[in-house]
Amino acid sequence: MKVDNKYYQTVWMEGTSIYMIEQNLLPFEFKIFESKNYLQTCDAIKTMIVRGAGGVGVSAGFAMAQASIEASNLSKEKYNNYVYTALKNIQATRPTAQNLFMASDKVYEKSLISSEEAILEAQKIAKEDAWASKKIGEYGNEIIKPNSKIATHCNAGWLAFVDYGTALSPIYKANKEGKNIFVWVDETRPRSQGARLTAWELRNENVPHKIIADNATAHLMSRGEIDLIITGADRIVANGDTANKIGTLEKAIAANYYNIPFYIAAPTSTFDIKTKTGKDIIIEERSEDEILYQKGVNSDNKIEKILVASPGSRAFNPAFDVTPAELITGIITEKGIIKPENISEIF
Amino acid sequence: MKVDNKYYQTVWMEGTSIYMIEQNLLPFEFKIFESKNYLQTCDAIKTMIVRGAGGVGVSAGFAMAQASIEASNLSKEKYNNYVYTALKNIQATRPTAQNLFMASDKVYEKSLISSEEAILEAQKIAKEDAWASKKIGEYGNEIIKPNSKIATHCNAGWLAFVDYGTALSPIYKANKEGKNIFVWVDETRPRSQGARLTAWELRNENVPHKIIADNATAHLMSRGEIDLIITGADRIVANGDTANKIGTLEKAIAANYYNIPFYIAAPTSTFDIKTKTGKDIIIEERSEDEILYQKGVNSDNKIEKILVASPGSRAFNPAFDVTPAELITGIITEKGIIKPENISEIF
Repeated sequence: MKVDNKYYQTVWMEGTSIYMIEQNLLPFEFKIFESKNYLQTCDAIKTMIVRGAGGVGVSAGFAMAQASIEASNLSKEKYNNYVYTALKNIQATRPTAQNLFMASDKVYEKSLISSEEAILEAQKIAKEDAWASKKIGEYGNEIIKPNSKIATHCNAGWLAFVDYGTALSPIYKANKEGKNIFVWVDETRPRSQGARLTAWELRNENVPHKIIADNATAHLMSRGEIDLIITGADRIVANGDTANKIGTLEKAIAANYYNIPFYIAAPTSTFDIKTKTGKDIIIEERSEDEILYQKGVNSDNKIEKILVASPGSRAFNPAFDVTPAELITGIITEKGIIKPENISEIF
Repeated sequence: MKVDNKYYQTVWMEGTSIYMIEQNLLPFEFKIFESKNYLQTCDAIKTMIVRGAGGVGVSAGFAMAQASIEASNLSKEKYNNYVYTALKNIQATRPTAQNLFMASDKVYEKSLISSEEAILEAQKIAKEDAWASKKIGEYGNEIIKPNSKIATHCNAGWLAFVDYGTALSPIYKANKEGKNIFVWVDETRPRSQGARLTAWELRNENVPHKIIADNATAHLMSRGEIDLIITGADRIVANGDTANKIGTLEKAIAANYYNIPFYIAAPTSTFDIKTKTGKDIIIEERSEDEILYQKGVNSDNKIEKILVASPGSRAFNPAFDVTPAELITGIITEKGIIKPENISEIF
């Protein structure tokens, strides 16, 4: 993708450093963050400098590679201890995203051979992430009819992956083909990835769109203003139940009520077929401050954090929810579009 | 209700002035706004210094009374012209709330007799508003089981009426009876009346509660964390379809999916039985800035407005939605709890 006509990926590794677009500053400031060691990368994942299913997955893989480089001068035993501890630390950053576990496990396995193998594996995962996203765009484009009004939730665009994205990848493809599409972008409180990141991406890619409150989706459906919903996924389990950003469930239930197709777009690396149903997915709870405070730009063009709720009241902030398979029309993967009940056939 | 141990109503009239709690400053600042003429009152309704079904209704009645006082020295013809113009101006402030039309029509009729009659009628409407809210609390309390976890949307508390409120009135009653209830308060973006006003009221009344993102309601339902939903209404039409704050529809659809009772609490003054179905309700569209900017308190304890969305993207901001009667378990009125399909029997 391009930002101000310069080609970027969301996260990449050069030498021993990982570079990532600083997403906590977007859309107000465009800055590249350099993480010089794996613990710094862990922090970047936790604080969501990098985010999204693919973004955290690829970063976790790179972090594992960083750890293996950091330990490469140690004795075999100390090296093994170091990379094992790193694996545990990396996997403790965010509990819900499947890609994080998949990528760090894979790179860890290779790190037991050598740090060179670990780096190669991490780079391979990053390349596959971008390739899968591109393929998702091609398959997903097939279900987008001309003049469609499409709703999405949160940000499953290229900022959430290495490039292209998942939910937004078919939208970019359809837009480039001149299908005259329009996108409803919901804010996605509390962190507002819709209003901040998806809207920013769509503007960079010249896709017509408007931001709405999270509360407005069902209303737009009731007025015939939404033809299709596509969201991303953080984890898809064996029976098709899907964990994604909090609020996805509510949109899926409303789509079901109004008979509007509801699609999930995700690479097969997001599938966790060892887990049988959504009940077994751990839902991350984040700080209540994400709800009580909001960050934005004040009239002096400075980023500021303000209290937006009644002082003294507490908040509860689950970061994800689980959409049951019965509400999902189809899952757009890099291998084609599958029904949630047919997941076992692919694996 | 009490604020800092002093008794208040949300809006009242003394002499030719209308006094109202300045709700745009809450919860950060508690201030009484004085409106000295009917046009100022119109502005207060438009800019939501006063808000909520009952709040705008009673204020519209008072505004009509103000207009009749302002015109009382004019000739009969000029008086009639003045109050008629006032009626049109008042009814142009906000298009969705039924109470606004009901109250201004009633006071207008009396103003044709005399301004004294108009004032009496406006005061009567205010008294009835508080009385109806109190009765709603008593009837609504009957459906609240001990240890219930209740969700509400927006603010239908005493700040939305003269006193007590509608959706919150049963909650206050149940809490005072020691039923050990807990309330989930959703933010209610874009204006965040949940996080700002409902949370503030509940804290003043010592009701245990937590604020959640609007996106989290269905998730809490899926985990068995919500036993009951009660919201207010801005207009209930003949077939039971109900206009209320944007997002109500989404909560009702989710409640229906999880078989959770979904109640509307509203006085009979909110019913518009001349309108047959929800399709005929005009939905107010408000400024997109309500979505793109957020107001709150900065670290210097000053109220500040910040941009919270991607610069340059536009927003769409419908203020209400219509929940179809089939999703409503019952309507709690001052005359008892009725099924939406039985509305005709009451009128």
